[in-house]
Amino acid sequence: MNLSPNRLVLLMHCPDQKGIIASVTEFIHQRNGNIIYIDQYVDRSQDAFFMRMVVEDSNKTIDFKTFKNDFVLELGAAFQLKCDFYQEERFPKMAVFVSKYDHCLYDILSQQRSGKLNCEIPFIISNHKDLEGIAKQFEIPFFHIPVSKENKKEAEEKQLEILKQYQVDFIVLARYMQIVSSKLIDLYPSKIINIHHSFLPAFPGAKPYHSAFNRGVKIIGATSHYVTEELDAGPIIEQDIVRVSHEHDVKDLINKGQDLERMVLLRGLKLHCDRKIMVYNNKTVVFN
Amino acid sequence: MNLSPNRLVLLMHCPDQKGIIASVTEFIHQRNGNIIYIDQYVDRSQDAFFMRMVVEDSNKTIDFKTFKNDFVLELGAAFQLKCDFYQEERFPKMAVFVSKYDHCLYDILSQQRSGKLNCEIPFIISNHKDLEGIAKQFEIPFFHIPVSKENKKEAEEKQLEILKQYQVDFIVLARYMQIVSSKLIDLYPSKIINIHHSFLPAFPGAKPYHSAFNRGVKIIGATSHYVTEELDAGPIIEQDIVRVSHEHDVKDLINKGQDLERMVLLRGLKLHCDRKIMVYNNKTVVFN
Amino acid sequence: MNLSPNRLVLLMHCPDQKGIIASVTEFIHQRNGNIIYIDQYVDRSQDAFFMRMVVEDSNKTIDFKTFKNDFVLELGAAFQLKCDFYQEERFPKMAVFVSKYDHCLYDILSQQRSGKLNCEIPFIISNHKDLEGIAKQFEIPFFHIPVSKENKKEAEEKQLEILKQYQVDFIVLARYMQIVSSKLIDLYPSKIINIHHSFLPAFPGAKPYHSAFNRGVKIIGATSHYVTEELDAGPIIEQDIVRVSHEHDVKDLINKGQDLERMVLLRGLKLHCDRKIMVYNNKTVVFN
Amino acid sequence: MNLSPNRLVLLMHCPDQKGIIASVTEFIHQRNGNIIYIDQYVDRSQDAFFMRMVVEDSNKTIDFKTFKNDFVLELGAAFQLKCDFYQEERFPKMAVFVSKYDHCLYDILSQQRSGKLNCEIPFIISNHKDLEGIAKQFEIPFFHIPVSKENKKEAEEKQLEILKQYQVDFIVLARYMQIVSSKLIDLYPSKIINIHHSFLPAFPGAKPYHSAFNRGVKIIGATSHYVTEELDAGPIIEQDIVRVSHEHDVKDLINKGQDLERMVLLRGLKLHCDRKIMVYNNKTVVFN
Repeated sequence: MNLSPNRLVLLMHCPDQKGIIASVTEFIHQRNGNIIYIDQYVDRSQDAFFMRMVVEDSNKTIDFKTFKNDFVLELGAAFQLKCDFYQEERFPKMAVFVSKYDHCLYDILSQQRSGKLNCEIPFIISNHKDLEGIAKQFEIPFFHIPVSKENKKEAEEKQLEILKQYQVDFIVLARYMQIVSSKLIDLYPSKIINIHHSFLPAFPGAKPYHSAFNRGVKIIGATSHYVTEELDAGPIIEQDIVRVSHEHDVKDLINKGQDLERMVLLRGLKLHCDRKIMVYNNKTVVFN
Repeated sequence: MNLSPNRLVLLMHCPDQKGIIASVTEFIHQRNGNIIYIDQYVDRSQDAFFMRMVVEDSNKTIDFKTFKNDFVLELGAAFQLKCDFYQEERFPKMAVFVSKYDHCLYDILSQQRSGKLNCEIPFIISNHKDLEGIAKQFEIPFFHIPVSKENKKEAEEKQLEILKQYQVDFIVLARYMQIVSSKLIDLYPSKIINIHHSFLPAFPGAKPYHSAFNRGVKIIGATSHYVTEELDAGPIIEQDIVRVSHEHDVKDLINKGQDLERMVLLRGLKLHCDRKIMVYNNKTVVFN
Repeated sequence: MNLSPNRLVLLMHCPDQKGIIASVTEFIHQRNGNIIYIDQYVDRSQDAFFMRMVVEDSNKTIDFKTFKNDFVLELGAAFQLKCDFYQEERFPKMAVFVSKYDHCLYDILSQQRSGKLNCEIPFIISNHKDLEGIAKQFEIPFFHIPVSKENKKEAEEKQLEILKQYQVDFIVLARYMQIVSSKLIDLYPSKIINIHHSFLPAFPGAKPYHSAFNRGVKIIGATSHYVTEELDAGPIIEQDIVRVSHEHDVKDLINKGQDLERMVLLRGLKLHCDRKIMVYNNKTVVFN
Repeated sequence: MNLSPNRLVLLMHCPDQKGIIASVTEFIHQRNGNIIYIDQYVDRSQDAFFMRMVVEDSNKTIDFKTFKNDFVLELGAAFQLKCDFYQEERFPKMAVFVSKYDHCLYDILSQQRSGKLNCEIPFIISNHKDLEGIAKQFEIPFFHIPVSKENKKEAEEKQLEILKQYQVDFIVLARYMQIVSSKLIDLYPSKIINIHHSFLPAFPGAKPYHSAFNRGVKIIGATSHYVTEELDAGPIIEQDIVRVSHEHDVKDLINKGQDLERMVLLRGLKLHCDRKIMVYNNKTVVFN
């Protein structure tokens, strides 16, 4: 028996206009919902309004489906309001894509097991076998789907099949070293999360850590973001940096970069699992 | 009467080889110098050796000129060693170039007056008159040298004349909004310090803060560096970042960026004034 | 002629209850106010509700006095709601108290002149004469009021007189090395801002930097806070830290500490000037 | 076959005096050792000299035992020099003590498996059974040694026996919720590493997170340190902080604190495993 009251998380956005907050809060109160969190943001350059609400159903009188339908009927048209509805206790299902690096994978699995990452992890997909042992260690199904120039399309079909079968909500590319196709991106819009290194200033090319070392950078960074068609240019979820000095060689930079990657990716995943992110116009609103 | 013993700061570099440290320390001890600081670094990818030393002349028996000559004679050829010699109590002379923004200028002058920035400031040069009042406030000569397409060369000649007249050691571009010429750069190699904003990832183009806002960046940065021919690509001295969120509009980003600029520029200047920086191959070794 | 529309800043708090946000937003809309910022917070442990609103009077139809009176009448009693009303364009008057250290003073005056610190500074009070030159430099009246065991009460009377005469809104103790009396604190509740160093862990006693050095701390911190009767235990406004290592001696720690103090104090002052802070139960809600 | 040359790590300290560096580097060169890292520090307040060196035996001609003996004979007495000698490729053996919290344990095991934490982990000791599953998952022996008022001494004897049997080099208390005895501390001086939360300012008492919340702190911290008789007052290895705001409730503070604990503990362990720490007078010199 779960004694804690059910909670709904609402993520809504619409053109900015008078009366939205008043109408939405009025709607909640009529249903005896208790608003325990409300945060909103107006992008003035776009005249766009965003709001995140957490509603507690203390008396257990709210029917989720009815609530959603009424909300759409009463508020949707009136304000051109779009809303995503989540039940807080229902964790999203996250597919994990990996290749050979284990640092992000270990962190994801450990934190999920520690109860710090609120998602289910139904399986791990990899184009290599290197990390199968870790999947076993954590008793998670592991699908080895090699990807080559020749079988790229076929491999992707296999991935899609598994994703559908397990009714996955979103995907994390935990250092998955393949470019995902437009098809996958279209099927999971703002639902594929990636991590990549970043530098001040940027160092284009194949060996960014070497370029950064040669320039003597004092800071290296990492960015977690949603995947879009344009490589590494999707909406930014979270970023952080670590200080380095001339004393660190290329290997040190890579090590520090990887340590940062696992932290920044994890923070991005936590925000997504807790439904704290809204995406629009290739940028995020993060209610943190 | 100055009771504190004189101190020499030595910045030296040479190809990496056995016996350097032993020979240099031996040289100092023979002259009754007391090594109170020693830090060294070897860049293995270049087989290059770098060392910073602070030597205390407790007994006041070291003659600066003789010391330098002996050092070059005994160690210079033997190790292909190059060394810069400074007397700690002799502050470098810093020329300040500004345009219209006052945030960096105020910080530089205040910190110098507070005894936190160990340099002399013989004058301020500007292509505008906006900041003349601040120069007056701090009783520092102010030279207004307008720069236009037509008079660019002539203006530069005036600048050079003043720089020579005051025997300036180095120059800070404290948000000076003109590109300095190759001639000036050649005359002051690794002696012109600039500040510019940086982003993760980089946003090229005329309005980087607007691009950064549109992308929803979570971090903005600033880099202080030595000026080279290639714009904003000189050796990096110091970098730092500040976190931002979707709640900050373009004006906020610019404000936060400027606040960061003044701090990062100041830290770069302090390192330079305290002779803690060595430059080679377009990168810095910062002994901090 | 000021073309930008007037803005009101409202800081309100009351016991948490249903319908507050809806009622307040409704009240604003009836007066054709445009809510351009709203942030709220509920302290569940206290069942206390806090909200900050910025209202734009685009049509210039809001009369400030009438607005305030109506607000109190219609909402005050209904929700036990207390509200502070500010006109954004009217800057608060800040009295500056200093002793001998100039690092915080320079930063405050420079930032205010740069238009980054939105307050008026009618005068500086000091128990020493050391910083009179800086006051002159910035053309601000300077009152030298020495404080000794014998004249403590008398000195305070002089301070109070000046504070009243200039109709000061709040006071900053910018490294003012005297303990202010209960009387002053009572007259300016949550309106006297102080800065002090902090350590992880804390080092009580007269020479905290020496204790911190002896313990080999890796981090030193600073805290800006409102002054209460209990020394250095008032509501915390802002904190930050700087990393140190064994290489830093006591003098370095003090220098780094002072550099941090000026930044943390300034950030605290900016938050206060921009009316982003609410105080209750010896803690702050900072809407940043 | 390991092609990379053997490396020795030397940690030495002695009273500060002339000629140490010259003599030590001379000693190394005579044995054809290649100094690839040297860092030194002088604590002027104690006139104490500290140096860390990494020596590469490129020609495989250095005999470890002979090297050590010669070093002690030639340099030990001459300079009152004490030195610890390590072979870089021989990882230290680390015993892990845990209770019920898993966040630090998961991180330690994952990072060690990823090759980022250079130690062997021969076993885990716990006074509870909660984390036995994780030990199994990583195939590490798990010893359940309950501790109560009655059996405290007996339990400790069991611990000591296991520690000896496995020839453990050092111990990490990864959220081990028992106070370790003087006997254990004496047997492993500067070899037991603990983690605890820290605050600015400090909050003594049983519920520091609650006190911190009530005071509205903006920063929470964590400290990893060597265990000494005086609780939580041993030499500090590493510290870090995370920013919080009024929006975080006590549960958030605890979560953020735990996330910080695992990072700060891990960084401390890495420094220890890589032999980068020297301890004297209850403080550390960290050559990082």
